[in-house]
Amino acid sequence: MIAKLIIDKKREGHALGSAEIREFVDGFTRGDIPDCQMSALAMAICCRGMNERETADLTDVMMRSGECLEWKDIAAPTADKHSTGGVGDKLSLIIQPIAAACGVAVPSLAGRGLGITGGTVDKLESIPGYKCAQTLDRFRNIVESAGVSIAMQTGEIAPADRKLYALRDITGTVASIPLIVSSILSKKLAEGAGSLVFDVKCGRGAFMKTPEDASALANALVGGARAAGRKAAALVTAMDAPLGFAVGNANEVREAMRVLSCEQDAMPSEAVDLCVELAAMMVSLAKDMSLDEARSLCRERLADGSAKRKFEAMVEAHGGDLGAFEALLKRPTFKFRIQAMKSGFVTDIDAERVGRVALALGAGRERPGDTIDPLAGITLVVKVGDRVATGAPLATLEKSSGPDGLESAAAELYKAFRIAPELSPPSQLIIERVES
Amino acid sequence: MIAKLIIDKKREGHALGSAEIREFVDGFTRGDIPDCQMSALAMAICCRGMNERETADLTDVMMRSGECLEWKDIAAPTADKHSTGGVGDKLSLIIQPIAAACGVAVPSLAGRGLGITGGTVDKLESIPGYKCAQTLDRFRNIVESAGVSIAMQTGEIAPADRKLYALRDITGTVASIPLIVSSILSKKLAEGAGSLVFDVKCGRGAFMKTPEDASALANALVGGARAAGRKAAALVTAMDAPLGFAVGNANEVREAMRVLSCEQDAMPSEAVDLCVELAAMMVSLAKDMSLDEARSLCRERLADGSAKRKFEAMVEAHGGDLGAFEALLKRPTFKFRIQAMKSGFVTDIDAERVGRVALALGAGRERPGDTIDPLAGITLVVKVGDRVATGAPLATLEKSSGPDGLESAAAELYKAFRIAPELSPPSQLIIERVES
Repeated sequence: MIAKLIIDKKREGHALGSAEIREFVDGFTRGDIPDCQMSALAMAICCRGMNERETADLTDVMMRSGECLEWKDIAAPTADKHSTGGVGDKLSLIIQPIAAACGVAVPSLAGRGLGITGGTVDKLESIPGYKCAQTLDRFRNIVESAGVSIAMQTGEIAPADRKLYALRDITGTVASIPLIVSSILSKKLAEGAGSLVFDVKCGRGAFMKTPEDASALANALVGGARAAGRKAAALVTAMDAPLGFAVGNANEVREAMRVLSCEQDAMPSEAVDLCVELAAMMVSLAKDMSLDEARSLCRERLADGSAKRKFEAMVEAHGGDLGAFEALLKRPTFKFRIQAMKSGFVTDIDAERVGRVALALGAGRERPGDTIDPLAGITLVVKVGDRVATGAPLATLEKSSGPDGLESAAAELYKAFRIAPELSPPSQLIIERVES
Repeated sequence: MIAKLIIDKKREGHALGSAEIREFVDGFTRGDIPDCQMSALAMAICCRGMNERETADLTDVMMRSGECLEWKDIAAPTADKHSTGGVGDKLSLIIQPIAAACGVAVPSLAGRGLGITGGTVDKLESIPGYKCAQTLDRFRNIVESAGVSIAMQTGEIAPADRKLYALRDITGTVASIPLIVSSILSKKLAEGAGSLVFDVKCGRGAFMKTPEDASALANALVGGARAAGRKAAALVTAMDAPLGFAVGNANEVREAMRVLSCEQDAMPSEAVDLCVELAAMMVSLAKDMSLDEARSLCRERLADGSAKRKFEAMVEAHGGDLGAFEALLKRPTFKFRIQAMKSGFVTDIDAERVGRVALALGAGRERPGDTIDPLAGITLVVKVGDRVATGAPLATLEKSSGPDGLESAAAELYKAFRIAPELSPPSQLIIERVES
């Protein structure tokens, strides 16, 4: 009865009280409020919105539905970076170790991928032995010893969000800034890091399609994190073309390791700059350092190999075997290379289409629970702005399970490329900064 | 997957296609689409609305989910009247027989009451033996032989509406013109009557609180019925004070029978006029007669006792025993009379409060399935506009089960009356006409 009155109130466009939000979400998490009532409220929130206070309350009750970590015993300041997800976004594998190498402790709980959005956990698990599923105690130990841990969100973290997200996913109630913000923040706040940096992806390959929507989300995330007493900043960055050359799992880890090894042209320089920028934002917030100083420090720790050593220490602490990973990369796979059918400039590579082809090859999941082929994926040979001659290689498609579907996937992938006689004006990766 | 896309489309404020509406509602009725998805769509409809074509499509698919009656074999034209429900609204018991006495066949399927809104079925069932639950074949026979039948909506009529309404009731998705219209119309159209008259109640004791909302509903009902090929008209009428003197079940039937017997002051004259008006609208539409002619005919058939005989024939055909009903009315009950504590004019009798007290006495249902005390209720002695002296009786409360709660109910009922030194300007029962 109370549940119905709360739904009525939101349907009429009124703000809900803190106790009402708490009662409803707690009731849903316990199972006292049925799915049909929760989905009706979620839709009313999609249509009528929530103010900042309501969003903060919703975030808080979802966060408190599970374990909330604290890092008081650690001397180093703590920070984490969260990306809203895109195609080829392996940046956590580079950024988190750079920040750790600058003396920031990085407790980072990540998720699996779904649809065209890859998951950091899936990427790391392509390293033989790397165990993302850790107890929270062991996660804490790894952060303390290695300085950085990227592990999987456990059921102990924000179980209310897990239950609500599963329902939103099937009831058309994902598209709502307050619901997205509370879902992301409840998990990130529960990690306990003192500083949070958000990379809000914007464009065809991202959930947010327009700069306006992405900006609204970035501001809401930063505002929400600050309301909860954390330091926070965000970038809105373009996700029209894939980020870097590799889209998949093992190939993305390989690309990240090459960047950490400072290999020339391992990744387009703009993407490397974005890694340094996001790491510098973490360091700047966590260590109360100017962004310029933090940027210099990050470049130094990337150049001197200490970021790479942090990555290796993290992999080792999680049971991963980099020797076995090198061997895995040498395993024979079924490959198909696509070539330019005309000469000109690459003016576009459609991230969404690349993501969908990678998914079809087995690099991602259509549905939760689908298994992933760690060697499946796409490795681009060119980036937007490159000049190509007829017959020049554009990308390689790869999968382990057999040649079936490789050729039709290649035909589909070719459509992602636009080759034009003239170069279009370059676009920037960073669209907007949301800072203190 | 398709279901989710349809929800997305409505959430974004777009009109749904006919096939989309059909597929979704049929899937829900079959059980293929879960409650959580249906309630999300219902909430999106509450927030984003539906255009006339969508509402007509929704009505049609719900109507076709069950049996649809036809009256081709009957020589008389068919018509029915539907009220959106109020406090003390026994008008169907008077209007339907008047229309039948004018040569219109009246197939009328009614529902049970819930909350402060009484149900015609419950009222009729206070007549010993009156069986509202009839097969559709038997319903047809009664309409053919007696000219009028008020029976209960069976599970064969619009089962999709039944399932959807139960869900809307618990998910805060009742308040939506397109959903209300399709719920009412799917059942009324399935009855098969060629002409439909709607009495849309407006005010404290009704679901629609403002003339604007009630007008929107009245226009949507008339528009929807016409779109489905029926003749239709509506009145918006006031439901601020109870309709007539009796609020309950047996006492409402007694009041209706007194009106049909043309007893002096059986009911306030304005309420009797409303009965004649609504019956005349049915007759005018069904028999292509001017409203003036129809009005005269209705008054004639009420005055000459033929409307009363139609009522008696209907009761008999349903197995009801009016002799036993007279005996029932003489059964001892627990009564409490309230009196004016000051002198002046009765300027207000709050229908909602009267309805709530009647409900508490046992005249209605808090929840579907609750049992009703047919003798419980309130009988007003005064109407708005009457002059009262200190100590003059205002109303009698009555129940069969025992004296418990009678005194506190009386105290509560007293608050429904406003007695002021000056008469307020009289308000009209008919607020708006929606006609061809």
